[in-house]
Amino acid sequence: MADKGGLEDVTVADISTSYIDGGSGILIYSGYAIEDLAENATFEEVLFLLFEGRLPNRKEYDELRRSIARGAGVPDEVIGMLQSLPKDTAAMAALRTAVSMLAAFDADAEDLTDKDRAKAKALRLTGQITTICAAWMRIVKGEAPIPPRADLSVAENFVYMMAGGQPDATACAALNVYLVLLAEHGMNASTFTARVVTATGSDMHSAIVAGIGALKGPAHGGANSAAMKMFLEIGAIENVAPWFDKYIRSGQRRIMGIGHRVYKSNDPRAGILRRHAKALADSSGERKWYDIAVKLAETARADDYFIQRNLYPNVDYYSAIVLYTLDLDVDMFTPLFAMSRIAGWSAHVIDQMGGRLIRPKANYIGPQDRKWVPIDER
Amino acid sequence: MADKGGLEDVTVADISTSYIDGGSGILIYSGYAIEDLAENATFEEVLFLLFEGRLPNRKEYDELRRSIARGAGVPDEVIGMLQSLPKDTAAMAALRTAVSMLAAFDADAEDLTDKDRAKAKALRLTGQITTICAAWMRIVKGEAPIPPRADLSVAENFVYMMAGGQPDATACAALNVYLVLLAEHGMNASTFTARVVTATGSDMHSAIVAGIGALKGPAHGGANSAAMKMFLEIGAIENVAPWFDKYIRSGQRRIMGIGHRVYKSNDPRAGILRRHAKALADSSGERKWYDIAVKLAETARADDYFIQRNLYPNVDYYSAIVLYTLDLDVDMFTPLFAMSRIAGWSAHVIDQMGGRLIRPKANYIGPQDRKWVPIDER
Repeated sequence: MADKGGLEDVTVADISTSYIDGGSGILIYSGYAIEDLAENATFEEVLFLLFEGRLPNRKEYDELRRSIARGAGVPDEVIGMLQSLPKDTAAMAALRTAVSMLAAFDADAEDLTDKDRAKAKALRLTGQITTICAAWMRIVKGEAPIPPRADLSVAENFVYMMAGGQPDATACAALNVYLVLLAEHGMNASTFTARVVTATGSDMHSAIVAGIGALKGPAHGGANSAAMKMFLEIGAIENVAPWFDKYIRSGQRRIMGIGHRVYKSNDPRAGILRRHAKALADSSGERKWYDIAVKLAETARADDYFIQRNLYPNVDYYSAIVLYTLDLDVDMFTPLFAMSRIAGWSAHVIDQMGGRLIRPKANYIGPQDRKWVPIDER
Repeated sequence: MADKGGLEDVTVADISTSYIDGGSGILIYSGYAIEDLAENATFEEVLFLLFEGRLPNRKEYDELRRSIARGAGVPDEVIGMLQSLPKDTAAMAALRTAVSMLAAFDADAEDLTDKDRAKAKALRLTGQITTICAAWMRIVKGEAPIPPRADLSVAENFVYMMAGGQPDATACAALNVYLVLLAEHGMNASTFTARVVTATGSDMHSAIVAGIGALKGPAHGGANSAAMKMFLEIGAIENVAPWFDKYIRSGQRRIMGIGHRVYKSNDPRAGILRRHAKALADSSGERKWYDIAVKLAETARADDYFIQRNLYPNVDYYSAIVLYTLDLDVDMFTPLFAMSRIAGWSAHVIDQMGGRLIRPKANYIGPQDRKWVPIDER
């Protein structure tokens, strides 16, 4: 009988990128507490840390930033493909297709074994995913995409490419924290997907495209946009209690962004994002969505079902408020998650390269010994 | 410590689609021996069997064929995207991108829960992958793609779209056997990938795109084209023995298409394909590649390393000869594998829908308790 359906008790790899203690609410990247990194690090420092196992010095850091910015351009053919899509295409489907298509224009796409080339490809993809996300937002609005600038960080480039002009420093700082917090998270479903693909000997683009497809699911990265849609549906602070009562009475229990497979107490990323969401809300003068989120979390925390099952807000819950305050379309929340998680995905892909084929077993419960019957006798 | 790297001892699902006894060389699809199906069934009958757990009657069969043929059209935008790719793009990268892009033009792409709609999407994808494979072959040669015909089977439509005119009956029959044999194979790496993606609640297109990425790897579906490249490199029957000696002396042991994770005796599909490869070779008057393959297999079977490890030719080995004799470019072999395996992938996706998130564990072996140091002090 199949008894490992969710594989929750199965350890599939030794890793050095991140450690999670779900019971105590602890997350570290390669030895550094997530709280320290959120306070101090840029996304590019985290990327270097995940790839190399240590923080970069100034020279290495400047080189890394230049590499990402230089490789962030997206071929006209890929922009043209995005422009040919119906405007109501799911943003994650557009991103998945664009990243897949980038392989055709990457001279190293079919190199399957060289880890240094794989790192260089991952840095190109990091910049290119940033460019694609910003381009898609503009294309949907009927605006021409803005190409990346070679002098900006990933967070700055994204804010710049959204609207042009001088990128707002507060927005860039908030986005940087978001990118740091979401960059890596152990053997999550999209990372595991990317590793399974890599273990067949397949290429970096195939692995990242598969990871994007997994992240898209509402039980994974899709939860951030689903949470925001829920906040928008609630619409006002006074609706929180009646919405919750009606929801519970209807027999539903799963609230998007509340509860996590691994964290059974606090998700440390949620607390950090909650503080940033509050600061952004205060500075923007629009506290409504933050207040709704806090009130709903408190309401759920007072309910026996949520208490008994240790269901707390996770990273997706407050990141929804942060991204909404940054003026992102709700459909873009999960692509922004991918824009950060490319760091962790590619570090895992490089670690998995050359490893053993991942092929579990299935338990056959179907019929046996059937005899062929010609179609007209069935 | 991670001890389940390949997950070979872990059972992840109860399934009714196929049963493999690797020790005895047995493969059945939903109770029918693969030998019976290869002898009697069309690919469409197998597709119905994998979806419904029984063979179709005449009315159901005709409906299924019509559904596939009606949905096999590919939007101009997707053909345009393929035409915009460099001609040396890996065929699997082109297919992966095209299938991903199809989601944008499928009205049901974002339906994540309805199994009937999922089946209908899978049938559209089955036809569309056939059309894309044939279109890409023509685009690479600078020829205009030929649209599918509504009255043809999958095998017939592919042969028709390759070159137009009346599809050759011998080629259609050989291709049909190939499609039947490759349609499903338990919890292989690409099928498992598709299930992991589906378990996040993600959509059919994301799951199939991820499966294509996994199949692309040389330790999985990529082995068929790798095997053919090896036969081409050997080039003549008298070169087999010296090639093998030199290969073994160079310290290499892995021969593409020989050995299988699951089959430790005969791969039953290999024997069937070997007979078809021989018949095709005889009727085409070109036995060279078949003879090289047989001679190399015999040479390896006489080597202690291969004897001790129970390494036999697998399905990819003789399918390479069959596909080459059907006039397919070597780069198209793995896309043809996908054209068949879409049946198994989508049956598994539908089975997995609504199931538990698949998220294994990792064992952290990196540093602990590092203190943040500002960049200019590193």
